[in-house]
Amino acid sequence: MIKNDSIIALATPSGVGAIAVIRISGKDAIEICNKQFQSIKNKNKDLTEAKSHTLHFGNIVDGDRIIDEVLVSLFKGPNSYTGENTVEISCHGSVYIQQEIIQLFLKHGCRMADPGEFTLRAFLNGKLDLSQAEAVADLIASNSAASHQVAMQQMRGGFSSEIKQLRQELLNFASLIELELDFSEEDVEFADRTEFRELVDKIRYALKRLIDSFSLGNVLKNGIPVAIVGAPNVGKSTLLNTLLNEERAIVSNIAGTTRDVIEDEMNINGVAFRFIDTAGIRDTEDVVESIGIQKTFEKIEQAQVVLYLFDSNNALHSDERTKEIQDEIQKIHDQFPNKKCIVIANKIDLVSEEEIREKFNFEHLVLLSAKTQQGVERLTDLLLEMANTGALSNNETIVTNSRHFEALSNALEEMNNVQFGLDSELSGDLLAIDIRQALYYLGEITGEITNDDLLGNIFANFCIGK
Amino acid sequence: MIKNDSIIALATPSGVGAIAVIRISGKDAIEICNKQFQSIKNKNKDLTEAKSHTLHFGNIVDGDRIIDEVLVSLFKGPNSYTGENTVEISCHGSVYIQQEIIQLFLKHGCRMADPGEFTLRAFLNGKLDLSQAEAVADLIASNSAASHQVAMQQMRGGFSSEIKQLRQELLNFASLIELELDFSEEDVEFADRTEFRELVDKIRYALKRLIDSFSLGNVLKNGIPVAIVGAPNVGKSTLLNTLLNEERAIVSNIAGTTRDVIEDEMNINGVAFRFIDTAGIRDTEDVVESIGIQKTFEKIEQAQVVLYLFDSNNALHSDERTKEIQDEIQKIHDQFPNKKCIVIANKIDLVSEEEIREKFNFEHLVLLSAKTQQGVERLTDLLLEMANTGALSNNETIVTNSRHFEALSNALEEMNNVQFGLDSELSGDLLAIDIRQALYYLGEITGEITNDDLLGNIFANFCIGK
Repeated sequence: MIKNDSIIALATPSGVGAIAVIRISGKDAIEICNKQFQSIKNKNKDLTEAKSHTLHFGNIVDGDRIIDEVLVSLFKGPNSYTGENTVEISCHGSVYIQQEIIQLFLKHGCRMADPGEFTLRAFLNGKLDLSQAEAVADLIASNSAASHQVAMQQMRGGFSSEIKQLRQELLNFASLIELELDFSEEDVEFADRTEFRELVDKIRYALKRLIDSFSLGNVLKNGIPVAIVGAPNVGKSTLLNTLLNEERAIVSNIAGTTRDVIEDEMNINGVAFRFIDTAGIRDTEDVVESIGIQKTFEKIEQAQVVLYLFDSNNALHSDERTKEIQDEIQKIHDQFPNKKCIVIANKIDLVSEEEIREKFNFEHLVLLSAKTQQGVERLTDLLLEMANTGALSNNETIVTNSRHFEALSNALEEMNNVQFGLDSELSGDLLAIDIRQALYYLGEITGEITNDDLLGNIFANFCIGK
Repeated sequence: MIKNDSIIALATPSGVGAIAVIRISGKDAIEICNKQFQSIKNKNKDLTEAKSHTLHFGNIVDGDRIIDEVLVSLFKGPNSYTGENTVEISCHGSVYIQQEIIQLFLKHGCRMADPGEFTLRAFLNGKLDLSQAEAVADLIASNSAASHQVAMQQMRGGFSSEIKQLRQELLNFASLIELELDFSEEDVEFADRTEFRELVDKIRYALKRLIDSFSLGNVLKNGIPVAIVGAPNVGKSTLLNTLLNEERAIVSNIAGTTRDVIEDEMNINGVAFRFIDTAGIRDTEDVVESIGIQKTFEKIEQAQVVLYLFDSNNALHSDERTKEIQDEIQKIHDQFPNKKCIVIANKIDLVSEEEIREKFNFEHLVLLSAKTQQGVERLTDLLLEMANTGALSNNETIVTNSRHFEALSNALEEMNNVQFGLDSELSGDLLAIDIRQALYYLGEITGEITNDDLLGNIFANFCIGK
């Protein structure tokens, strides 16, 4: 799988900017670049003789034609991202120039990099293990403090180094147990069974903890699902906009950095929330509407937090309406007794707070007004509390990748088999099979065990240029 | 106007990519960066002690929190783009990370750069003259080989160095003539009038040439306007798509580089053409339609080339239709005797070529078939010929900037006044006034003469980060 031809790709986002960076990696990267490079101050400058980690100002030329004035960054393998010789060409950020430079090098010994191929090479050259490589993609995709922190920790190896070490200890025992098999007639025990039991316990505990962290990891990565329940016109979109404005205020002082905001996804204090609109759960005999209610229940089922929203003014309009709202809230509590629920009395600026409190006496009641901003802070505090991101602030390892989750689950299953084998005093050869399987799954996470298909799947999801 | 506080901006296009580059420039740029930087291999590394043009791998940190693993490029003034100390931070290309890093430095001594402020500083620090600085923006905006070449030549100073030299010579004479004024009672002539006449001629000639180049420069920058005339359904959009496909084939082998194609603007062999659709010019007594024809004539007026397109099959349908088409072409020739016109017989695969040639005997007749691709090459050859980009291939200086055009025109007017003054043996003091004015306008081009308003206008059009 290891190739050392020279690959090229645009590393910066496509489009027009002040500068763009084009990256070339491969055994001959520096030589190839050198042939199309002309230093401006020193006509005889030879990039192949320059030191690693230096910058060179000059022209990229195609014969007599100057394509651009650029800065070339030189990295000599193994001291580069990929572990190979690498050049980064920082050119003027016109799409035309980007294309011309890439075309020029495609003519002169480079080929277009596949998605993720730079990181794949870094992995194959031992610069990163597999879970670290995967964290690079997560890091680039990260859009909240939480997802960023988790990806960063994983990229820095916190998580895979633990797996690697446990796997190494397990491997040692596996060797001892397999050694016993060679001496099976002599009935010796090289592997101390008490120590081994302790290790098996330790690994099972660690695996369980990592597997358990996945549910948090998953929501941190994809956003914590919050279902919004409420009749039309109670102010659902105003609520979302109010929360959105809170978030936007944070970034508004950075001119020129625009971000794609998905209307119903937003960061609150660095944690991503995904708001899911529902059709409400008003009691009805209408068939069509009752399908809507069914769907609302499904969405609540998937959500981690439920926001029940009502219009305070409307709620106090009649006793009947008051009763309706109380019933709806009760229904949610009955259907989902363990679901975290926040009740929001909206448009509170129009009515008396006491009257609302009297009629809607719930634990997590928020009196909200988009107009006066009353209650917004309490709402975000409650959301963060219910997001339960404690593990995050404690810097605990969190698994976010479903591939890892699967491998960890498989490894745990095998370790449970090993445990069972030990308990039932299974023979060493049978024990060894389960241990080997567990080793296999653990190795899959860090990439110590791998195959082309697996790598292909992982890196195909990377962007080109990384 | 010179400030030396530290400015920061994202230099790469906004959005997600493999990497992003954040640039900081200012007296304290390296110190500011150093405080938030932690080398990974060498905990004690101090960026302020590192050499210029070196690259450093490490973490950007906010206290204990690691924001990202980055590469820092160091440039020590005056050997940097701006002429000041400059740091470029190459980080993972997540929008979140870009924002976090920029925010961090905004908290620690940087302010957001204004649009074009890096280039403005380069100008103020004498790294570029004004026309070179303007060329930087043109270069970034360039989207064809022609506009790129013109911007590149201007950025490399080809054009302003000529102006500078002529201005210097004129300045010398101006000094001599003004010196004469001090000795006016003695009737001496320090400035040799014959030599001075030669210089005035030389300058007027050079200015005229540059002014004349503007019409080409302008179309190279904005695309050569081509009016397409023809009845509905004769295949106008098929023609555009055929030409567009020719162009797309060129770039299709660079995966990952997408470009925005404006449907009716395209590059042919590196020259941008702007195709303008018209409603046709069929004879009519209908008032509404005759307004349409009026508009078509206006568009033809603005165009450099006219494509008259008809459906071959339909054209041979009846003698009446043949006559109609012949009349329409004749009308264009009559109305615009000097306009370059190409007549395209479309859908030629459906009829006999001879018959068409017989009935439509025009100099620039192209027999075209989008289906068989017949005639496409001849059409693009003709378009390029009529684009008259000879000056471009001869590497002549071309003016593309309307500010320069204006200054050059003003300078020429003043030089004509000087010429007139010489011819009518005007007194030295009056001559000196015109010379001073010419010097002023020439100086405006290179920025030797400038003011804050002018600079503000120029750099406000730059993108942030450049």
